[in-house]
Amino acid sequence: MSDIIDLINWNGLLSQSGSTDYTLFAAATEATSEVVAESGAEEGTLILAGVLLSLVVIYFASKLGGEICSRINLPPVLGELVGGVVIGVSVFHLLVFPEGGALATDSLIINFLESTAGLTPEAAESVFATQSEVIGLLSELGVIILLFEIGLESDLKELIRVGPQAAVVAVVGVVAPFAAGTAGLVYIFNVPAIPAIFAGAALTATSIGITAKVLAELGQLSSKEGQIIIGAAVLDDVLGIVVLAVVASLVKTGEVKIANIGILIVSAGAFLVGSILIGRLISPYIVGLVNEMNTRGQVLLTGLVFAFSLSYIATAIHLEGILGAFAAGLILAETEKRRELEEQVIPVADVLVPIFFVVVGAKTDLSVLNPAVPSNREGLIVATFLILVAILGKVITGFTVFGQPDLNKLSIGVGMIPRGEVGLVFAGVGSASGALSESTDAAIIVMVITTTFIAPPLLRLVFKETDAVAQSNSTPSLEE
Amino acid sequence: MSDIIDLINWNGLLSQSGSTDYTLFAAATEATSEVVAESGAEEGTLILAGVLLSLVVIYFASKLGGEICSRINLPPVLGELVGGVVIGVSVFHLLVFPEGGALATDSLIINFLESTAGLTPEAAESVFATQSEVIGLLSELGVIILLFEIGLESDLKELIRVGPQAAVVAVVGVVAPFAAGTAGLVYIFNVPAIPAIFAGAALTATSIGITAKVLAELGQLSSKEGQIIIGAAVLDDVLGIVVLAVVASLVKTGEVKIANIGILIVSAGAFLVGSILIGRLISPYIVGLVNEMNTRGQVLLTGLVFAFSLSYIATAIHLEGILGAFAAGLILAETEKRRELEEQVIPVADVLVPIFFVVVGAKTDLSVLNPAVPSNREGLIVATFLILVAILGKVITGFTVFGQPDLNKLSIGVGMIPRGEVGLVFAGVGSASGALSESTDAAIIVMVITTTFIAPPLLRLVFKETDAVAQSNSTPSLEE
Repeated sequence: MSDIIDLINWNGLLSQSGSTDYTLFAAATEATSEVVAESGAEEGTLILAGVLLSLVVIYFASKLGGEICSRINLPPVLGELVGGVVIGVSVFHLLVFPEGGALATDSLIINFLESTAGLTPEAAESVFATQSEVIGLLSELGVIILLFEIGLESDLKELIRVGPQAAVVAVVGVVAPFAAGTAGLVYIFNVPAIPAIFAGAALTATSIGITAKVLAELGQLSSKEGQIIIGAAVLDDVLGIVVLAVVASLVKTGEVKIANIGILIVSAGAFLVGSILIGRLISPYIVGLVNEMNTRGQVLLTGLVFAFSLSYIATAIHLEGILGAFAAGLILAETEKRRELEEQVIPVADVLVPIFFVVVGAKTDLSVLNPAVPSNREGLIVATFLILVAILGKVITGFTVFGQPDLNKLSIGVGMIPRGEVGLVFAGVGSASGALSESTDAAIIVMVITTTFIAPPLLRLVFKETDAVAQSNSTPSLEE
Repeated sequence: MSDIIDLINWNGLLSQSGSTDYTLFAAATEATSEVVAESGAEEGTLILAGVLLSLVVIYFASKLGGEICSRINLPPVLGELVGGVVIGVSVFHLLVFPEGGALATDSLIINFLESTAGLTPEAAESVFATQSEVIGLLSELGVIILLFEIGLESDLKELIRVGPQAAVVAVVGVVAPFAAGTAGLVYIFNVPAIPAIFAGAALTATSIGITAKVLAELGQLSSKEGQIIIGAAVLDDVLGIVVLAVVASLVKTGEVKIANIGILIVSAGAFLVGSILIGRLISPYIVGLVNEMNTRGQVLLTGLVFAFSLSYIATAIHLEGILGAFAAGLILAETEKRRELEEQVIPVADVLVPIFFVVVGAKTDLSVLNPAVPSNREGLIVATFLILVAILGKVITGFTVFGQPDLNKLSIGVGMIPRGEVGLVFAGVGSASGALSESTDAAIIVMVITTTFIAPPLLRLVFKETDAVAQSNSTPSLEE
């Protein structure tokens, strides 16, 4: 404590020193009080506190949900989604997002910061906004890392070999639910064409993240079924972006600009083929470079630089970043560094991936499921139809794979069922455009929720049949 | 492509369907064009793209700098700092921050997004702000993970054993530079008392992050010298917060509120002692819980929940978050999970920690070092004095450790030299308060830069003497 007394004694300097400037003093007084009370530094600390608290809540929810699900023999990822729902907008409001219409006062974490860390109500809105942005971004990095890991665990040669089958699965899985959904809504439910097309488009999506995670948990990622599903889901992701562009263009101008759609398809194809071809050419040099490096983390960081670069390119040409990360994983999986890279990516994925699933759950608003609200009832009836189309439209895709009698065709179709965050993007764009009525919007969300949450247990169920195969094919690093 | 043609043919539905509503169409057109052009979704994608690009640039700079330094026998962390300087505000403007007065147009990454990813100039400022917040937050998570890792590698018993010596080192390292610096400025340079006290206060800081990282790179973390340095740096961090509070209160009200300072000191002491005592009591239950868990990442995520919780508490009581993470690491280092946790934290640290050092470098504005600017010259003369005091005031601290003849006392003092980000906080608060003249502000920054950048090579130099000891004590996991 002697230093403190010394410090306070230094105050004496003030009266001793001839050059003391008391007007400076007064000015500094005002300035500093503002600095200390409302400065960026102080707000930055509170944002950090909010992010730390959010991460604690997210990890707690993901582990609690995951552990409960693994005990009752359900995929842990379902538990992470449900954990997210519990802490999110539907139940406890710990983790809510401004995009969902939440204010800072709705967030229990912000309230907790106000009562424990001295956050002022004036600063709450801006801290809430930034904290939500950061958590949202960490969740996006999470799904990018997940797809990088899935790419590393995949086998490019096998993927190319099952390519034609995956392509048929993807195309049927887009066309069948879109056609049946749109036609059904228009002719059975008398929904106007535009919202019907939007709903049909939302039916085409496949959440590659959820499917891939469940496959990894089941040890089915490297099985033939697993590779067909992953291949089809990747193609579906590209098709989904094209469908969204077509629908958005349709809503916007009343016509489809075939030139724009063409550019999108060509750039998507060029990206997937080009990144893999060029990547395979340069990957030996990347490995050579890594072998020359001798500071910590050289393999992991070089891998991530490659993955993030391809993700960036994919994002820049209006594809999804996860496609770039997946391509990077596929390319690096063919190098001698695969094992080392996989081992090092796992802890990073363990830290970032749960954020993604919990955030997807937290953003899911289950209030649309409440039949006590009259407007929901109409939506729920439409939703029942959409769910049926959503499931059947994807389940049939497995049976389009001909000439492979020993294939678990049901599992392929089931693997394509979850709409997840991709379906929510369609609902979000549709709802923001004003093209969707409230009940149709609700129906799409109910369809997305249902398909997302039933797919993991269904997948486990249909893979049970091939359990023996599963065990010999399993990739132990992705299971406990 | 058949799906696309099918899709476009669905356009036909519009004319067939009786319920087509063309007014809805027009409304939707306007809404969607806004949605697509300026929506949060689109902006979110661009922010993600900006973050990915920033990470690529950061990792590239950190590895390039680190590899060059490791080849010319300098600590890699110096290379990461210099790499940051090169991509930052001083040279290439790839990574600049709004807090440093930069606009979106100053950021090469934002310019690149505009030319490659379709970012509009209108959205640029907001994308730049959010992207900078995210990168800043990732860097703060980086230093939290670094201190958690350092805590895991430290030995609580050894730290308690060297506690008295560390306390003497810390206190002398605060009092000596503060007294000498403030008195020198007032009596030799006729600096008014308030800015002199601010400059003196900035001299008291020690950057635990930079010191700990260099020690880890040298394999000296678990040596007696290393543990004294770490212990003293942790105490110095607490003292630094107290000093900042004293100085801020002095500037603000012209007097020191001893009650407030008392609360700060008591809460800091209570936190450090309390978290370790309570932590040791509950850590067996944490280990028991982890042993019960069977989903992926259970050890790492439980450890991080513990670390982030303590970081949050530290932040909430106005200490630094890194102190909580360090305490969490210390506590968990005493459990049977230490080895497993350490192994899993390493890749996470490899991903996040370089962001911290590169960002520190990128925020460092070397233009204050340019002697061609007249106002800099005055600052540089004052800076020379401050640097001398900064080095001597810390170097003597090692020699306050009595009765340990075989201790490398010089290395202890040198380990306390880098002011790093802590010194910049003092300069920042001082400059924002208006209490500092431009030349004094520049002098403090030059002092912080110099001490930060010379400490790593100096530390390596003084530890060379005890190289034989180093090799037997080294912790291989933190070295290459």
